[in-house]
Amino acid sequence: MLLDRIPELEDIREAAIRIKDYTHQTPALTSLNISEYTGAHLFFKAENLQKAGAFKSRGACNAIFSLDNEDLEYGVATHSSGNHAQALARAAMLIKTKSYIVMPKNAPASKVAAVRNYGGEITFCEPNLASREENLKRLIDETGSVEIHPYNNYSIIAGQATACLEFIEQVDTLDYILAPVGGGGLLSGTCLSASYLSPKTKVIGVEPELANDAYRSFREGRIIAALPPKTIADGLLTSLGTITFPIIREYCHDIVTVSEESIIKAMRLIWERMKIIVEPSAAVPLAAILEKKIEIKGKRIGIILSGGNLDLDKLPWK
Amino acid sequence: MLLDRIPELEDIREAAIRIKDYTHQTPALTSLNISEYTGAHLFFKAENLQKAGAFKSRGACNAIFSLDNEDLEYGVATHSSGNHAQALARAAMLIKTKSYIVMPKNAPASKVAAVRNYGGEITFCEPNLASREENLKRLIDETGSVEIHPYNNYSIIAGQATACLEFIEQVDTLDYILAPVGGGGLLSGTCLSASYLSPKTKVIGVEPELANDAYRSFREGRIIAALPPKTIADGLLTSLGTITFPIIREYCHDIVTVSEESIIKAMRLIWERMKIIVEPSAAVPLAAILEKKIEIKGKRIGIILSGGNLDLDKLPWK
Repeated sequence: MLLDRIPELEDIREAAIRIKDYTHQTPALTSLNISEYTGAHLFFKAENLQKAGAFKSRGACNAIFSLDNEDLEYGVATHSSGNHAQALARAAMLIKTKSYIVMPKNAPASKVAAVRNYGGEITFCEPNLASREENLKRLIDETGSVEIHPYNNYSIIAGQATACLEFIEQVDTLDYILAPVGGGGLLSGTCLSASYLSPKTKVIGVEPELANDAYRSFREGRIIAALPPKTIADGLLTSLGTITFPIIREYCHDIVTVSEESIIKAMRLIWERMKIIVEPSAAVPLAAILEKKIEIKGKRIGIILSGGNLDLDKLPWK
Repeated sequence: MLLDRIPELEDIREAAIRIKDYTHQTPALTSLNISEYTGAHLFFKAENLQKAGAFKSRGACNAIFSLDNEDLEYGVATHSSGNHAQALARAAMLIKTKSYIVMPKNAPASKVAAVRNYGGEITFCEPNLASREENLKRLIDETGSVEIHPYNNYSIIAGQATACLEFIEQVDTLDYILAPVGGGGLLSGTCLSASYLSPKTKVIGVEPELANDAYRSFREGRIIAALPPKTIADGLLTSLGTITFPIIREYCHDIVTVSEESIIKAMRLIWERMKIIVEPSAAVPLAAILEKKIEIKGKRIGIILSGGNLDLDKLPWK
């Protein structure tokens, strides 16, 4: 059964056990080089090395594995152009149920192929939220499948929260944890785990200036819809949800924004110095360090590298 | 004092202890995805995550740290266009001695910057072996520094051998270990560690077809000089040395060659599926798997990912 309330510590611990055999305990990496360059002690939770290339596998596995066999009979469904689609298709495949994915018709070929590779059945729609939701609704009516929303779902949040749970076990006494924010699934999960296990750690959401809806929502106290996407951080185009927003509002210390230039610089720094591949969205928190959006000197700062899925033919520094 | 004979197991173990605090014990990674794709059980020793971005830090640290204070008084010197230059400069900096590096004047700006970043003093030369050796000889005469050859040096070989030593401790009973071969420092060290600790494991050197001098040397029983470089695997342009060749001839099971196309395909596969950055030379062994140059079905195969240093503005699939 899916969770119907804010995950408690026990729910997050149960999620961790539920997904353990199907996800990686990703490493917490350090880079002396980047730490020296920035003047902070940085720790990177490498969710780019997670199954299906992003933290989304945690939430998707937790949500699907929480369902009873009866619920699973007609499969699961979602709309997503990105990492949630792959993660959900993979989790469904693991448990031998069907997955129906609504994707915008302009989704990158590599993402479409990845979803198909995991056995996901794709319905293409127009690249806007109305068309996505309309198609998803129709699909659910037709198939009887269970909707697994990418972030506005307590079981998804409990799953994403396991990344921070592990991170806190791996690295002592962080002053800050920084996570990118799109729909807020990762950020709200991160806030909850930190508040339960390391209440002195300040959790900061980081967002591209060109998709600053969460930043504005946090300040204005109401959900502000995302503007049409312009940022290269294509994982962060969605707006906060009715479930994620109240958690973030209560438990998140702050949300800051960063420029596209800093995102690209941070991404390249991670590639060059750490020899790992992260997608633009995953570089957004380091961009906040480069822009000194928080006090960093001598601080112990954890950064969640959210994913590593991108088209290698379209790198932002070309 | 530098070693003056083929490293024994004890020498390799001592090297491991000597360099322990200054190099990483790199992880042995797996990729279910690539294993399924190839039909083999693959294990990747991630020396791209090594200090200074390549296994060369092992040999350079071992050689320099083996020298007495007296020997170190006037610094160390080498000629190298690549990873050995960075590794030697870094190791020299750690022990507070000078490093003199002869580099071809067409060396990539990123490699020149990295050497300077570690305090290396660069002398530029013409991009050919004669000019490199001539300049190095003059430099050594002028400075009184100690030459640390990139591979034709027993202490360097003992250092490189520690990668395989760790690998064998990390992964049980490998049927094969594959390493790229340029000058043969990594390959000869790998052969020695495997022969001492896992004699049933076959060690295979892999080389680009366009730089097949080691392949031909191995078959003809004499050192054949490298032809002018054409391969994108720029770490593998050198010829075997008088010290590395006899070791490889005796302990290496075979040397195979691969096409440029396969190298690029293997490199992209590692980037996309494993989310780590490897340089072309490091992808050469996986290319041999893709080309089925050895029997692979169901075999446990270790691959040494030699390094991750490359110019992100010049990717081979552009």
